[in-house]
Amino acid sequence: MADLHLHRILKAPRSAVWDCWTNPEHIPQWFAPKPVVTRVLAFDPRPGGAFDIVMSMNGEEFPHQPGCFLEVVPQERLTWTSALGPDFRPVDATGAPFLFTATLTFADHPEGTDYRVVARHKDEASAQAHEEMGFSQGWGTVAEQLGAYAATLGR
Amino acid sequence: MADLHLHRILKAPRSAVWDCWTNPEHIPQWFAPKPVVTRVLAFDPRPGGAFDIVMSMNGEEFPHQPGCFLEVVPQERLTWTSALGPDFRPVDATGAPFLFTATLTFADHPEGTDYRVVARHKDEASAQAHEEMGFSQGWGTVAEQLGAYAATLGR
Repeated sequence: MADLHLHRILKAPRSAVWDCWTNPEHIPQWFAPKPVVTRVLAFDPRPGGAFDIVMSMNGEEFPHQPGCFLEVVPQERLTWTSALGPDFRPVDATGAPFLFTATLTFADHPEGTDYRVVARHKDEASAQAHEEMGFSQGWGTVAEQLGAYAATLGR
Repeated sequence: MADLHLHRILKAPRSAVWDCWTNPEHIPQWFAPKPVVTRVLAFDPRPGGAFDIVMSMNGEEFPHQPGCFLEVVPQERLTWTSALGPDFRPVDATGAPFLFTATLTFADHPEGTDYRVVARHKDEASAQAHEEMGFSQGWGTVAEQLGAYAATLGR
């Protein structure tokens, strides 16, 4: 399959989880598995708006390039892609090991928030490369951090 | 520049021009410079919806692959890209000479409709390849066909 999936129940209200994903002030608190450090370079959650986050470890930055948001449906769905930059401009994919589009969905759950991620790739090989780079483990850890941090926002 | 531009005044009402661009029944009437024949394989004008049109001449089809719509703002703006397929999935760009995102804007004008196209590419070389393939001439001819056909819809 060309898709990767993650599904978690987060013990925090949906509104708080949504805020964590769409207010750039919150992003560095949960976005990367510690001790990786996250810095938000551009973050404009509207269709065509920039999504540019750089991660670093021991002061060394990982490669990154701006992506863009595609769908922003408050507290329901957030979609962004690495295949297009700001204003939907196609990216220069030279050097990118794979491109993907992530769709996050948020729903109420008795314990808090039903949180789902689908990462779509052009083909199975790309999805496999993403998985081998640590998709399930990385996004799993990050989902835990997201839930724990969102719970502290106390809404 | 990595962008290509086209600007025309079409002598037809904005609502008719919009219909021509968003109702797949109208597409074959104006989309390709004659004698090229247009066939609509998939056409779902909503963000993430498929945009797949094949052109042929003397019975021979040109290469094509599904793109997708990104922005659909009735009678104002329509954006689609060849860099993502349906559901915003990144395309396999092998063999594509370039990828681009087209944003069409429609505004009222005393003579009919102010019609603008911006085609965004990853870099200047891609834009140049698109221009050498006939962007200005092709989209220019097609804009004339669009205006003439839209005028016959009589709204």
